[in-house]
Amino acid sequence: MLSEFSLIDRFFARRASAPAPRLQDASATPLGIGDDCALIAPPAGHQLAISTDMLVEGRHFFADVDPYTLGHKALAVNLSDLAAMGAKPHAFTLALALPRADEAWLEAFSDGLFALAERYDCALVGGDTTSGPLNICITVFGDVPNGAALRRDAAQPGDDIYVSGTLGDARAGLGAIRGEWAAPEGSDWRRALERPEPRVAVGLALRGVAHAALDISDGLAGDLMHILKRSGLRAIVDADAVPCSDAVRALPEPARRQCTLAGGDDYELCFTAPVAARDALANIATSVNVPLTRIGTIESSGAPRIAWRDAAGAPLSLTLQGFDHFHAD
Amino acid sequence: MLSEFSLIDRFFARRASAPAPRLQDASATPLGIGDDCALIAPPAGHQLAISTDMLVEGRHFFADVDPYTLGHKALAVNLSDLAAMGAKPHAFTLALALPRADEAWLEAFSDGLFALAERYDCALVGGDTTSGPLNICITVFGDVPNGAALRRDAAQPGDDIYVSGTLGDARAGLGAIRGEWAAPEGSDWRRALERPEPRVAVGLALRGVAHAALDISDGLAGDLMHILKRSGLRAIVDADAVPCSDAVRALPEPARRQCTLAGGDDYELCFTAPVAARDALANIATSVNVPLTRIGTIESSGAPRIAWRDAAGAPLSLTLQGFDHFHAD
Repeated sequence: MLSEFSLIDRFFARRASAPAPRLQDASATPLGIGDDCALIAPPAGHQLAISTDMLVEGRHFFADVDPYTLGHKALAVNLSDLAAMGAKPHAFTLALALPRADEAWLEAFSDGLFALAERYDCALVGGDTTSGPLNICITVFGDVPNGAALRRDAAQPGDDIYVSGTLGDARAGLGAIRGEWAAPEGSDWRRALERPEPRVAVGLALRGVAHAALDISDGLAGDLMHILKRSGLRAIVDADAVPCSDAVRALPEPARRQCTLAGGDDYELCFTAPVAARDALANIATSVNVPLTRIGTIESSGAPRIAWRDAAGAPLSLTLQGFDHFHAD
Repeated sequence: MLSEFSLIDRFFARRASAPAPRLQDASATPLGIGDDCALIAPPAGHQLAISTDMLVEGRHFFADVDPYTLGHKALAVNLSDLAAMGAKPHAFTLALALPRADEAWLEAFSDGLFALAERYDCALVGGDTTSGPLNICITVFGDVPNGAALRRDAAQPGDDIYVSGTLGDARAGLGAIRGEWAAPEGSDWRRALERPEPRVAVGLALRGVAHAALDISDGLAGDLMHILKRSGLRAIVDADAVPCSDAVRALPEPARRQCTLAGGDDYELCFTAPVAARDALANIATSVNVPLTRIGTIESSGAPRIAWRDAAGAPLSLTLQGFDHFHAD
C-alpha cells in the first residue's frame, strides 16, 4: 500500500510540470505541484477559461472501465468545455478519491490522462488525493483573447446552426452495452463512448467566426436549448440533417433519433454562425479535418424552443429528454 | 426530487455571480455560471493562485455532520491554501456528488458555503453536480502580485519559524468525539474542527515580510517538513513554545503533544521570516488580531529534519506522524 504522498509523487507529480511561462512579466514565474497553490496567469490581453467536471462510477463510467480510457475521458470532457469556449488548453488540476491505492490501476489511469494532456500541452499543476469511493474531479484552465470567447448567449437571429463530427455513437455504444441493440462489426461506438476526442482545434478555429457555441454532453436537444434560453431565441432543426455514422444510421428510426438527438457523451461542438460565414466554415472543416454540418437556423426571438423538421421540411413531433444526473436515463 | 438543473439553479446559480470585473481591459468581461467555462483574469501584474481540495464522508467529516458547517469547512480549507500563498480570494468552482437531492440538506450546505464566500467576496463561478457518494470538490482562485507569493521553498537559514493562532484544538475535538478524552466545559474544540477560520488576513499581511509559508492541515510536524524539504534546510523547534488553548494545555503531555505537533485540520499558518522582521510581525499580529508565535529557527542547510527541544532547550525525542489519507490515523 502506498502512502498518499508517495502515490502523488509516483504517478502524478513526477509527470507534472509547471505550465509554460509566458514572458509578459519575468517576475510572474508559474508554479506547479508541491506548494499550497499553483500560480498561473493568462497571456496579456487574455482571460482564463475555467471548467470543472466530476466523474463518478456508475454514472459516468462502469466499475470495470479500462483505467487508461478513464484517464483519457476524465480530461477529455474538460478539454471539450475549453473547446466550446474557443479556449486553448493550458493547465489542469486533478482531485482523486480512490477506494485503495492500486498501483496497476493508477499507472494505467495516469498513462491515459497524461497521453491526452501532453498532446494538448496541458500541464498538471495541482491536485488532491484521498481515500473514498472512486471520484475524479478535474478543473481545466485555458486561454482565450479578451472578448473572443464563444458564449452560449451570443446566438443571433438568422444564424445557421452547425454540429461538428457525428452524433449518437456514444449513446449507441451505451445501448449496445445495455443490450438495447447490437453493435455492428467495426463500429466506433465503444471508442466514441470511452475515448471522446475534444474538439479543441475546431473551437480555436471558430474564434471570430462562430457566434454561440457549446459542447454536446447531454444530447443535442437539451444542449441546444441552453443556447436558445441564454440567447432568448428559437430554432428550426432538420432532424434528418443531423450527421451520424453509418452504424447509427442503420438503427431503427426511434433508436437513431434517440441516439443522435438526445444521446449524451458525444462531446462534439454545436454552434451558430452567420450565413456569411459559410465559406469560412467550409475552409475550417477542411483545415482541421472535421466535418461541420449545417442542421438548422436560429429564428427571431420568442419563447425558446426547437421546432424539429424532417428532410422534406415537414414538422416532426419528438419527445426527447436530455441526460439528467438525477433521473433515470 | 429535484432535477440536476433545477437543483443547480435553486441552491447555487441563484446565489452565484460573475466575479467582480477588473478594469484592466474593458473587453475582458468576467463570466460566471451558465456557460461551458467561467472567464476570469487576474489584475495586471498579478498571478492567479489556484488550489483544489476534495472532501469525502468518513475521511474529512462524519456522516451526521451539520451541513451548514460542512459548507463552511469545504470552502474554508481551500481559502486557507490561498492564505498560505498570500493570495486574495476571488472566485471558486464547486463540484458536488450527492446520494440524493435533499432540499433541507442543500439549503443548509449552501447557506454555510455562501456565508463564508460572501465574507471574503469570493464568487461561485462554475461547477458540476452529479449523483453519487457524497463528495465535495472545490477549486479556488486568488490574486497575488507577481513575485509576492509565499512559497514553501523560500525559507532562509537563520529565519525564525512562526505559527498563527493556536494549534491542536481540532485534533482535540476529534479525540473527544472518538472518546479518547473528554472536552472540557466551554472548549472551542468542536468549533475548531468544524468551523476553521481561514487566515486570509494574516496571509495578505505577510506578503513582503515572511519568506516561506504554508497552512497546517496535516499537523505541524509533517507540514513544516514540506517547507524544510523544498527549501533544503533543517529546523530547531521548541515543542513547548507551540501555542495552544488552555483546554489543550490541560491534556496529559502525550495527548497535548499529539494534538499540537501532529494534529490535522488546524488551518493555521506556519511561516518563516528573517529576524529583522520581528517588530513588523508584532505589528501585524496586533493589526489582524491573530497571535503570531515564534516557535523555532531555520538552520543552515543539511538533510531536512526537525530537531525538537523542550522549554529548557533540552532535546526531545518525539515520534509523530502527520495525517495521511491512505493510512489509519
